[in-house]
Amino acid sequence: MLTTLQLYQTPLAHHDGSGLYVDNPQPNLHDTVILRIRTSIQFRIRQVYVRTVRDGEPKYIQASIDKLTQKEIWWKVPLVITNSVTHYRFLCISDTPPTHHWLNARGLCTYMPSDAYDFALTTYHVPQWTRDAVMYQIFPDRFALSTLHPLASQEYPSWAHHSNWNEPIQPYPQNMQQFYGGSLWGIIEHLNHVEQLGINLIYLTPFFPSRSNHRYDASSFHEVDPLLGGNSALQELISQAHKKGIKVIGDLTLNHSGSSHPWFLKGRDCPDSEEHNFYYFDSTLPIGYASFSGVSSLPKFNHSNMELRKRLYEGAQSSTAYFMREFNLDGWRIDVAQSAGIYGADNFNHDVARITHNTMQQVNPESLLLAEHQFDASESLQGDGWQGTMAYAGFTKPVWAWLTDHREHNDWGAPGGSDQYDGIQMVESIKENQARIPWQTLLTDMTLLDSHDTARFASVATQYYKLGIVLQFTFPGIPSVYYGDEIGLHGTSLDDGRQPFPWNHSQWDTATLDLYKHIIALRHNHSALRTGGLRWLHVDHEFVIFARENSDETLLITINRGSHSPVISPINAHDLLSGQLLHKGDPIPADANTAFIWQVEQ
Amino acid sequence: MLTTLQLYQTPLAHHDGSGLYVDNPQPNLHDTVILRIRTSIQFRIRQVYVRTVRDGEPKYIQASIDKLTQKEIWWKVPLVITNSVTHYRFLCISDTPPTHHWLNARGLCTYMPSDAYDFALTTYHVPQWTRDAVMYQIFPDRFALSTLHPLASQEYPSWAHHSNWNEPIQPYPQNMQQFYGGSLWGIIEHLNHVEQLGINLIYLTPFFPSRSNHRYDASSFHEVDPLLGGNSALQELISQAHKKGIKVIGDLTLNHSGSSHPWFLKGRDCPDSEEHNFYYFDSTLPIGYASFSGVSSLPKFNHSNMELRKRLYEGAQSSTAYFMREFNLDGWRIDVAQSAGIYGADNFNHDVARITHNTMQQVNPESLLLAEHQFDASESLQGDGWQGTMAYAGFTKPVWAWLTDHREHNDWGAPGGSDQYDGIQMVESIKENQARIPWQTLLTDMTLLDSHDTARFASVATQYYKLGIVLQFTFPGIPSVYYGDEIGLHGTSLDDGRQPFPWNHSQWDTATLDLYKHIIALRHNHSALRTGGLRWLHVDHEFVIFARENSDETLLITINRGSHSPVISPINAHDLLSGQLLHKGDPIPADANTAFIWQVEQ
Repeated sequence: MLTTLQLYQTPLAHHDGSGLYVDNPQPNLHDTVILRIRTSIQFRIRQVYVRTVRDGEPKYIQASIDKLTQKEIWWKVPLVITNSVTHYRFLCISDTPPTHHWLNARGLCTYMPSDAYDFALTTYHVPQWTRDAVMYQIFPDRFALSTLHPLASQEYPSWAHHSNWNEPIQPYPQNMQQFYGGSLWGIIEHLNHVEQLGINLIYLTPFFPSRSNHRYDASSFHEVDPLLGGNSALQELISQAHKKGIKVIGDLTLNHSGSSHPWFLKGRDCPDSEEHNFYYFDSTLPIGYASFSGVSSLPKFNHSNMELRKRLYEGAQSSTAYFMREFNLDGWRIDVAQSAGIYGADNFNHDVARITHNTMQQVNPESLLLAEHQFDASESLQGDGWQGTMAYAGFTKPVWAWLTDHREHNDWGAPGGSDQYDGIQMVESIKENQARIPWQTLLTDMTLLDSHDTARFASVATQYYKLGIVLQFTFPGIPSVYYGDEIGLHGTSLDDGRQPFPWNHSQWDTATLDLYKHIIALRHNHSALRTGGLRWLHVDHEFVIFARENSDETLLITINRGSHSPVISPINAHDLLSGQLLHKGDPIPADANTAFIWQVEQ
Repeated sequence: MLTTLQLYQTPLAHHDGSGLYVDNPQPNLHDTVILRIRTSIQFRIRQVYVRTVRDGEPKYIQASIDKLTQKEIWWKVPLVITNSVTHYRFLCISDTPPTHHWLNARGLCTYMPSDAYDFALTTYHVPQWTRDAVMYQIFPDRFALSTLHPLASQEYPSWAHHSNWNEPIQPYPQNMQQFYGGSLWGIIEHLNHVEQLGINLIYLTPFFPSRSNHRYDASSFHEVDPLLGGNSALQELISQAHKKGIKVIGDLTLNHSGSSHPWFLKGRDCPDSEEHNFYYFDSTLPIGYASFSGVSSLPKFNHSNMELRKRLYEGAQSSTAYFMREFNLDGWRIDVAQSAGIYGADNFNHDVARITHNTMQQVNPESLLLAEHQFDASESLQGDGWQGTMAYAGFTKPVWAWLTDHREHNDWGAPGGSDQYDGIQMVESIKENQARIPWQTLLTDMTLLDSHDTARFASVATQYYKLGIVLQFTFPGIPSVYYGDEIGLHGTSLDDGRQPFPWNHSQWDTATLDLYKHIIALRHNHSALRTGGLRWLHVDHEFVIFARENSDETLLITINRGSHSPVISPINAHDLLSGQLLHKGDPIPADANTAFIWQVEQ
């Protein structure tokens, strides 16, 4: 039996943090924000209230009818912003039992829910340029050699085996020592590639001196690795990128330093030194100190030490501030943010987030602070801490669980193999995670299909990787392309995913490159994709249909994994990817492994 | 069609924080706790893992089979306690899709949930005497006049109209001035009544001098109101109560003082005084300062002031510590804890909880810190803050929504009338709220049917109030009897619920008194009611059946609101309330308005 898509009747009620529902997404204290909520006529709601909390006390404010359409009622209600974080949910009252329906970010329920999934507005500033950002992640050792500033062989580091650019990644553990010699100068020489793709934000994994090709084991937080071109190369890279309208953020490890860092060496050798208290030295531990994952080269910081805070992230003299001020760096991604400041009875994690945030805001209120967090990061995403997170939990993992066919390449550390979801499980998992995060934070999250810490998406989703790309660019958040994904680079493991970028165009998958260029351009041209609301309209095992919409346009995104009985379109539309037309009353194309971005004709 | 109760097959998997599933509920850092989880044979689980977080990083530890019964598998897994709060959930892997099942405190789901409902263990100490506590709440002005220390008429306060003990409560607003003259001496003279009921914990609403009959507008936090008998009466009350094995906790207002408090008067009149910074003076506000609910007699504290903290709750010189040390007071209930320390951009709420907790632990590690919180208090219930809360959200409101027939007497401040639940909604609401709170905190929550802030339960649940009493005493948490509930006192509003206790026995509802005495004795005699696990076995619109169980006994509690098709008993049992026998294969009694506590024969 063919069913017709219920464009205005499912879900029965909807609200999110987008412009259709919140007229001032970044209010100040004492501002009045107008909230809107839409309810289906079928839902038979006669009264709507917003339930919020002021100075700890719940308040109910009645909504009035704003607009009546054939199939929906739009309600509006003023909300005065009293506190830095304002939580709210809606109470929808109907005539027939159950009379009380609560709407929070997780959905509707007929009993009083906990506060866990309340909507949230905050008074904390988030830079609005991030709404238009498309990110490109570069692992400096592997992106590009420099022609103008080549590294001389005598400069190759002592800890490494030098590999030529075309050599394959060695198996573990030999790959740990592979050094290809990509540099910031190399990036500068290939900025056009990045620009032509439509990128306006580069995320560099660490540029600090260290003793590894990944550079997460910094031996200094106050200079750029000479192997990468040193301070002058970073100055030049940021300067040239800015001229092209491209911002640049760095990668800062607040969880640990390298064991070759002078702080660590001094702290280890001088128990009376200030630096001794920067770490957790403990002779009862196997290696004599706490470290990331027990790895001896990554000694863990003790954030109870105020001097450490000042050097790293508190105030104008900190490394955090220094690179922003002196190099015009546009922000930071914080490595292992999920664990920074947490050790035993110590938990300074939120302090680390909050203080780093404050320091950055003081240098540049338009800077961006992102956290690496592979799990539920919601506690530090309420506005005063991280401005966004790498959306592994709320995007990457659910999408992998639906679309990947080579799960053996990555189990995310979970036993029993990685999750396998149908479309319903994927969407529930996404909703569950998104609902814990204020909408403005969600828009600042980095939505990624892969990174330097995973296998390449194209190698784990060999059939459906294009569906993943469409999901990524039609989702709220900052889409992030891991260098080389755009030309179809493969990699069946974390290490194998760090292959040098093949600058020989004959090695490029140009169909994939065209898709990326097309969809990035769509992202730039359609504001609904960037900041529109998100409504799930039809979710089933083999397909999902959701709307991104604002006052200018409504886009219906259809992702078909398997083929299925088509649903009937209630609207005329055309597909922004293929140009294909869709007429009201026609079945929406439902072939396996297809994706569409239908622009609804007004 | 008659169905048989599935005693060991529903829920498909179960874990809670009770002794059956956690061998050491209050571990220290580095302890290993053995966790157990039971899965139904029907569930076809082949592997179980606990997923926990150590120093911010997830870890999976595989469980082994502990015990196999005909219908269940019991699994066990060691968990090393690394941090002060340890969150965990279980991953149950089955052979057939969906293969991955997550169990958290909210239940099972087939996709990766957020951390919102993880189980939690903490290293924070909770006094174990609270597990055996049955509480009695006394509103001093209304409990008992003293024969030995009567108040002379010239001592009646100037702000009040004196009422004789038998006079009814006046309508609002006259009731605001009614002063009956009950005192701590009066309580001492009626301690036998409390003792004979089976009470071992008295909660006194405020004993501070003030200008109201409720005394939440303190004019001192360092002495006992002379109208109540002053310091010597409190000394004597606590001393005599302790001799009877009854502990006593007070009621402390950390949100505000009275406007007659010298701190407020000095702060108001001397803008340069330290006390000026104890409050939020602000000439743009209607009354010139922030206050509780805009009431001028209740000026709100500004907890950014360190001197205020020291006087009230930080350290040995604070009022919090003073009464515990000098009077042997056993703890505090904190008034308006939901709002204390929150005002505008200020949010010191968790600091207030944490510091008060630390101060009390230093004076007496066996003291009890409870919070008034009418909503979701989970953020400050993770161990380092409030040790428990008044369980309005997790118990009182859901039970009212199922059992009350005179909703007009109390809408809990929500619009559209108070909620009306069927049994399913009640249980979902309870589960939702309980799942946010560590089990050890849940056992310390004050489970109440009513209080000085509500209508009397007997007046809003005129038909089903006995069902509520059975729920209260068979639930985890400290059951709290509001003075007079045990003799059937009525009251259709907050004010009307504060009637003087009628000491003339002819006015007593002796059937209700007998029920209270019986069920309190059952509570004392059956450890499963106090600390046993809680499993919901059968939940429907008109009835609920749940188990409380430990290694000694299994109790099945059956609450029938309406009559319904009975379910068949899978066990032999007898009812601890009536002595009635139940045989395996017989229908479990299902008459409307009945409640049973079936003790299962081993």
